[in-house]
Amino acid sequence: MNIRGKKIMMTREEYIASLRKLKPIVYCNGEKIESVVDHPMTKPHVESAGMTYELAHNPEYEDLMTTISHMTGKKINRFTTMQMSTDDLVKKVKMMRMIGQKTGTCFQRCVGLDAMNATYITTYNIDKKFGTEYHERFKKWLEYVQENDLMIAGSMTDVKGDRSKKPSEQADQDLFTRIVEKREDGIVIRGAKAHQTGMVNSHEMLILPTTNLLEDDKAYAVACAIPVDAEGVIHIFGRQTNDQRRLQGDIDTGNAKYAIVGGETLTILEDVFVPWERVFMCGEVEFAQDYVTRFASYHRQNYGGCKVGLSDILIGATALMAEYNGIARASHIKDKLIEMTHLAETMYCCSLACSYDGHKTEAGSYYVNTLLANEVKLNCTRNMYEIARLAHDIAGGFIATLPYETDLNSEEVGHYIKKYFAANPEVETETRIKLARLIENMSGGTALAEAMHGAGSPQAMRIMIYRESNMGHKKELAKDLIDIK
Amino acid sequence: MNIRGKKIMMTREEYIASLRKLKPIVYCNGEKIESVVDHPMTKPHVESAGMTYELAHNPEYEDLMTTISHMTGKKINRFTTMQMSTDDLVKKVKMMRMIGQKTGTCFQRCVGLDAMNATYITTYNIDKKFGTEYHERFKKWLEYVQENDLMIAGSMTDVKGDRSKKPSEQADQDLFTRIVEKREDGIVIRGAKAHQTGMVNSHEMLILPTTNLLEDDKAYAVACAIPVDAEGVIHIFGRQTNDQRRLQGDIDTGNAKYAIVGGETLTILEDVFVPWERVFMCGEVEFAQDYVTRFASYHRQNYGGCKVGLSDILIGATALMAEYNGIARASHIKDKLIEMTHLAETMYCCSLACSYDGHKTEAGSYYVNTLLANEVKLNCTRNMYEIARLAHDIAGGFIATLPYETDLNSEEVGHYIKKYFAANPEVETETRIKLARLIENMSGGTALAEAMHGAGSPQAMRIMIYRESNMGHKKELAKDLIDIK
Amino acid sequence: MNIRGKKIMMTREEYIASLRKLKPIVYCNGEKIESVVDHPMTKPHVESAGMTYELAHNPEYEDLMTTISHMTGKKINRFTTMQMSTDDLVKKVKMMRMIGQKTGTCFQRCVGLDAMNATYITTYNIDKKFGTEYHERFKKWLEYVQENDLMIAGSMTDVKGDRSKKPSEQADQDLFTRIVEKREDGIVIRGAKAHQTGMVNSHEMLILPTTNLLEDDKAYAVACAIPVDAEGVIHIFGRQTNDQRRLQGDIDTGNAKYAIVGGETLTILEDVFVPWERVFMCGEVEFAQDYVTRFASYHRQNYGGCKVGLSDILIGATALMAEYNGIARASHIKDKLIEMTHLAETMYCCSLACSYDGHKTEAGSYYVNTLLANEVKLNCTRNMYEIARLAHDIAGGFIATLPYETDLNSEEVGHYIKKYFAANPEVETETRIKLARLIENMSGGTALAEAMHGAGSPQAMRIMIYRESNMGHKKELAKDLIDIK
Amino acid sequence: MNIRGKKIMMTREEYIASLRKLKPIVYCNGEKIESVVDHPMTKPHVESAGMTYELAHNPEYEDLMTTISHMTGKKINRFTTMQMSTDDLVKKVKMMRMIGQKTGTCFQRCVGLDAMNATYITTYNIDKKFGTEYHERFKKWLEYVQENDLMIAGSMTDVKGDRSKKPSEQADQDLFTRIVEKREDGIVIRGAKAHQTGMVNSHEMLILPTTNLLEDDKAYAVACAIPVDAEGVIHIFGRQTNDQRRLQGDIDTGNAKYAIVGGETLTILEDVFVPWERVFMCGEVEFAQDYVTRFASYHRQNYGGCKVGLSDILIGATALMAEYNGIARASHIKDKLIEMTHLAETMYCCSLACSYDGHKTEAGSYYVNTLLANEVKLNCTRNMYEIARLAHDIAGGFIATLPYETDLNSEEVGHYIKKYFAANPEVETETRIKLARLIENMSGGTALAEAMHGAGSPQAMRIMIYRESNMGHKKELAKDLIDIK
Repeated sequence: MNIRGKKIMMTREEYIASLRKLKPIVYCNGEKIESVVDHPMTKPHVESAGMTYELAHNPEYEDLMTTISHMTGKKINRFTTMQMSTDDLVKKVKMMRMIGQKTGTCFQRCVGLDAMNATYITTYNIDKKFGTEYHERFKKWLEYVQENDLMIAGSMTDVKGDRSKKPSEQADQDLFTRIVEKREDGIVIRGAKAHQTGMVNSHEMLILPTTNLLEDDKAYAVACAIPVDAEGVIHIFGRQTNDQRRLQGDIDTGNAKYAIVGGETLTILEDVFVPWERVFMCGEVEFAQDYVTRFASYHRQNYGGCKVGLSDILIGATALMAEYNGIARASHIKDKLIEMTHLAETMYCCSLACSYDGHKTEAGSYYVNTLLANEVKLNCTRNMYEIARLAHDIAGGFIATLPYETDLNSEEVGHYIKKYFAANPEVETETRIKLARLIENMSGGTALAEAMHGAGSPQAMRIMIYRESNMGHKKELAKDLIDIK
Repeated sequence: MNIRGKKIMMTREEYIASLRKLKPIVYCNGEKIESVVDHPMTKPHVESAGMTYELAHNPEYEDLMTTISHMTGKKINRFTTMQMSTDDLVKKVKMMRMIGQKTGTCFQRCVGLDAMNATYITTYNIDKKFGTEYHERFKKWLEYVQENDLMIAGSMTDVKGDRSKKPSEQADQDLFTRIVEKREDGIVIRGAKAHQTGMVNSHEMLILPTTNLLEDDKAYAVACAIPVDAEGVIHIFGRQTNDQRRLQGDIDTGNAKYAIVGGETLTILEDVFVPWERVFMCGEVEFAQDYVTRFASYHRQNYGGCKVGLSDILIGATALMAEYNGIARASHIKDKLIEMTHLAETMYCCSLACSYDGHKTEAGSYYVNTLLANEVKLNCTRNMYEIARLAHDIAGGFIATLPYETDLNSEEVGHYIKKYFAANPEVETETRIKLARLIENMSGGTALAEAMHGAGSPQAMRIMIYRESNMGHKKELAKDLIDIK
Repeated sequence: MNIRGKKIMMTREEYIASLRKLKPIVYCNGEKIESVVDHPMTKPHVESAGMTYELAHNPEYEDLMTTISHMTGKKINRFTTMQMSTDDLVKKVKMMRMIGQKTGTCFQRCVGLDAMNATYITTYNIDKKFGTEYHERFKKWLEYVQENDLMIAGSMTDVKGDRSKKPSEQADQDLFTRIVEKREDGIVIRGAKAHQTGMVNSHEMLILPTTNLLEDDKAYAVACAIPVDAEGVIHIFGRQTNDQRRLQGDIDTGNAKYAIVGGETLTILEDVFVPWERVFMCGEVEFAQDYVTRFASYHRQNYGGCKVGLSDILIGATALMAEYNGIARASHIKDKLIEMTHLAETMYCCSLACSYDGHKTEAGSYYVNTLLANEVKLNCTRNMYEIARLAHDIAGGFIATLPYETDLNSEEVGHYIKKYFAANPEVETETRIKLARLIENMSGGTALAEAMHGAGSPQAMRIMIYRESNMGHKKELAKDLIDIK
Repeated sequence: MNIRGKKIMMTREEYIASLRKLKPIVYCNGEKIESVVDHPMTKPHVESAGMTYELAHNPEYEDLMTTISHMTGKKINRFTTMQMSTDDLVKKVKMMRMIGQKTGTCFQRCVGLDAMNATYITTYNIDKKFGTEYHERFKKWLEYVQENDLMIAGSMTDVKGDRSKKPSEQADQDLFTRIVEKREDGIVIRGAKAHQTGMVNSHEMLILPTTNLLEDDKAYAVACAIPVDAEGVIHIFGRQTNDQRRLQGDIDTGNAKYAIVGGETLTILEDVFVPWERVFMCGEVEFAQDYVTRFASYHRQNYGGCKVGLSDILIGATALMAEYNGIARASHIKDKLIEMTHLAETMYCCSLACSYDGHKTEAGSYYVNTLLANEVKLNCTRNMYEIARLAHDIAGGFIATLPYETDLNSEEVGHYIKKYFAANPEVETETRIKLARLIENMSGGTALAEAMHGAGSPQAMRIMIYRESNMGHKKELAKDLIDIK
């Protein structure tokens, strides 16, 4: 099965090379992107995902980045593993914080990982109830993923249309991805998936339903795997805050190597054929909600990993800026750095807790504590904004008014900028500007909106927290204490 | 004195025409801008400032936009008046909220207004102590400003270098604007002013000191007026979040007409000569702190005006988006809209309170309540972030992943975008996207950083609040209540 | 009409003497209170209300405490005036902050003042619609109140029963106060009013409806005036945090002179007869909501007055404690004191703003800005808790573990307490303990719950804010800016 | 060594009997308490601690409540164990949440547990450096504690005097506990320990230093064990919010069985002799800071256990009250219950995380992650106040104005209270009142102040967080990302 011979885990270079072989249709800014590896808009996202390959070969991170396949016994990249122990759940979080500390942005590959883990459990459960054979099919495909160290895009979020209506009630039946035809050899699906993180530099996409479904929504209960360059698949690349700065140079973009967030797409599925061996759910509406909950919980678990890694950088950058500005010793600066750290570590605690406090499923894999996983993300939707706010506070107003990189480099005015944006005389002005641009871009629009909506919007967490809160038990505790019935 | 004959108040068209006559040196993105009126980067800022001229001729807003000069008895644009009554202070706030509701962004002209009002009082006070004649000089220049309805850039913020050092202690003596030569006919100044709101589309700049000064800093105690195209003045245009979107079309920029924030510059003063009749402070270090405090307090007063006007739009846009998405009736949506309103109106209350509770100065003009003016801005540095956060929450994740306007308009994929980003079937997809882009751009990086640092950083307010808190009196109250000494 | 001859404004002593003449039935802790003036549970509340009389004779506060009756032209205590100008509205707030700074607690008399002002407007409006004569009746009674400088309890809050049901739907029809009989000479009412601030030391109570009413609720649309010792009126005194400490000494109670909050009662109306000349509403359900809104808004206006006065003391006490503990110079202490000040002054701003921005009603009196008045109170339900939290933080853990006053005074262990609770050697231990008890009692249970629910619960404000937010206009602003329909 | 024969773990009854044998000198409210087991002020605290004995015999909780001594191999109460594994650390947290759910208040016994665990490590470290034999001594005493299932009061907090001075700099040298004499057979100590949780119903106290010490403070570096009724020990019982309600009945006190907080004392050490075998530190100032940090971190770990258990009750009580009031289905109620749950579970996550992420010490026992343990408590100092605020919000204003229990039971007015405080007709009024009193007392003064200062004040956590934040590493991460040196 291993298409690249003996060596399972790809290097960063092999990953990039593997992408060159794919031919996804990608539109961006009115044009087709010929090579996602080379195009300035997509390249940094490729590089960020590339870190998940590169670090797996770094002995320092071997324990975090790799594990043993429970199916093949071979050493695999952790981004392709099922969570087979508490230790796996915890290491996933720690791995994510560590990679976040290196990339300063989304490295995308967790979405597919979480989609695979949710599918592992849900296919098991469907089979158990209906006597289907989704689980075995999925395991075969999973082995293929592991053996070839593929990057999988987790494709859950449908475009959803009118949010007050179920899929089958929408004015346009395609607003949720659906099966338009069942054939002897497979199914044909149509629809669109939004906010597809890392899609254009993935190998395949794993499609799953996006919401709980009722009997009338049978056509929407579909899960399957498709190559990103399958026929009928069209990707439209989303734009991010300050994306065009990438076309001009490295400073103004802040994090030139890895950019921000995950290079999201709107991915169109225009009557895409999927052979049966790649179909993992087909009409079992009863399992849609459980499927979504599992994916969401696995995914919410992550945010106290990666976002804390990013926060580590942002806190460090802010502390550095205080030094560069000559105010590192001011008590209010120290206090704000403590507050940023506090907000970040609280998220980390939630991720660790929901991991350590997970449990084994009937399918044999481990699943997080749902209640606590939702706490992670709900904290994230607040704490990341407050961290950004404090970063702005310390960094100073010039993150909003700095001249262009082109001016910094210009003969006419570059020397003025260098002279007048000097602060601590031991630090070069250009260094200070670079740092300001990093802070600006890590704390701006897209980065924050991602912290809000990635892995679901706050109201989704609140509903889950209420459902998991066991309010009835709490009421009994109060009654018991004061002897009322 | 009136260079344009009888009619004092310029129309928007006259304002634009007047700018064409000026020849400021402006660099932006590595090139010189030939016409700030026409260049896509500066044009929307011109339009926004233009609203301060246009609305003055709208009978509906006459009461807010115009007043009578206490010097000439002529009807003038409120942006050139001294605050001669409580009513003036209050109307300033209400005017700013109203214009903010029309432009959705900074209209820039208040900075000069506040600088002029601070100068009016401080020159009076200097003269009283030192027998100088700054106040009369200033009044002459002020009359010229009123008669010609000029837009004045308030130029306070120096680049500041190492923040732990006073001006005269800096490694480079030019890091605060200073007098390098005193001549018989005037002075020569050198330095740079940062974050210069509305500078490139102003007529003149009014320079004032940026911090309290000690005896050694005499050269830094300078206030004066300079045309924006005076010899030796060079402007470097700052870049904003998503600024380059302006080059491609109107949708992605969100607020295409007026852009975001105030088109700030780094303005270099390369040995600029200023004749004595335009010099309003020259060495009186004793008055620097009071000068700064007055300017800052007048300026902080505004933020519960303009920012609340902006918030009105953002709240409205968010409420609309909830309708477009089909969730307007969800209780959590309503609750968040209430919270946004609450945060905005609280800022408005502070602005009204510091205005109504102002007092008459010895110079005859009215000055805000310093303590309460600082409350306005301190609330702003928090509330605007929370309003943005809630806007993100309601608007949904697609503000971070929407495709490009060029793709929306492309033949290949435009129809996909229109089909799949449809929500409420009664609303065109393009309308929904326009609205999303408005929300995105009003709640993003530069807009937030401005709410944080405009008119001073939070720590500056906190110091002022402590100074004005009369803690000694509060301690006495506690002692009195429990009869301790 | 003036029952005490020429002099209209009572002194504190006269007020107390006037209470001795009344014979209200008051139960407290299982017993009848014979004299509210002398009983240790009610005495401090009498003293606190007494301050509204005493300060009216203090020339320093004449401008705040007194005004001229618009009906009689005589000088009256401001607590009996109609708000006849913006100045009246503002002075009400400033008066309340000032008295709060002296009493450190509720002085109770504003409830009746607000009830009277609401009644003034609503009776005018009812008469205008129905040709009734309530307004003239009310004015006669009001003149009697002014001439005799009476303290009026504003009696709005019914006990409400099942909150999901209207008055007429309740299992027990008496759970909202209602007219049980209409007679030729007057009406008979039954029900109970809860949380009756200052009731036992008032002269009369002014009853008004508590909620909007539907056609079936006609019997509940009743407003009228009743002496506190009218036949059928029974008061049950509520208990407060630490109330029994009053029985033992002055230190542990914190604020021994004036106690905390307002001495609230549950007041039973057991078929109380009210002659027609004291009936101000009788069945006009259409006006119930407006009546309630006006009372609530007038009353919410106050909280940025009195509570800020209380906060001034609490902030001062906390600052003193930092000194006594030797940590006044720590930057985190200063920062917390600034934050407390900020939270208090923000509430004050809202009270000033809703007052200054009020308007004249058809009845001729002035009414606050409803939206902004609700902002006052909504901020109060948060800020007062945060101020208390910060007071706890600075004051230190011993506010929760201090020994009894009896132990401090005991021969056996008093010397240990004095020795071991010493801190700054220049401050007597007893002084430090007194201060700790003040902080403890001002920041504890009842005081906080009052800040939450007095003048209505947060959700009531939120509903009003939404109703007054003009969301439709805000949506239009957003549409205008981006040219969508 | 086991003074009670074979059976190691005491029952609740045996615990109470064991207390009767002790004769501590306890003053409370000006009098000596003869029997802490019977006195109404101390009895509920005895009962609460008694739960730590009772539940250990309940098979349902055996796993949480008991463990095996690593020294004797015998089954012991978990409150006497050293933390010998990650599992021990985690179960400590889960045990505390569970007991908190039963008592609704502090059960006191963790302080001694944490003091013992800190002593275990620190004595090991001192011995390692100085060749002393404290560790073996301590282990002997520990075995005695385990064998007899003793309750140990952890006695750290000195009274501290002027907080800006070190122990040896204080005006009175006794303001920190110190060695006044070293004798052949032992030492004599003098001083006082404040906020001594559970002291009067403990068997012994374990004294440890309260702050880091310098060379001059040698006399203050003392740790030792003393019976609570040793000669020279005098306890002065602190008073709590509403403590006197206990003297009248069960309803108004809220939690009549277990009261609130931990029955803290000021404990005087008047030249108390301690034999050498009970001395565990004597002059080693170098280890004071580490000792304090370890105790504080172990103790801060707990707050996401017990306080979350308490919060479970408070949330349940609040949810019940919403039902009793007829508003359980209102969306804002549900939303607030979710928020309370969120705040509680976030604290729980931090406690779990710092436990799971602990590590083995050289002494062989396990120690929490210091950084994350401090996060627990810092969140607690905010979240508990917000939970209380939301409880007030939902419970309604009557928690601040309810009549006395004596009035509820009175013939004259009891029927009025029952009639008029009825809400949901299916719930008895008395039940509703009981619930209100529970909420009132769990969310009031002392309970909150304990959440603020127990296990240290917020600033102590902030300093620790900064120290543990590895800011240098964070700065390097930022530099690496943008290639600056």
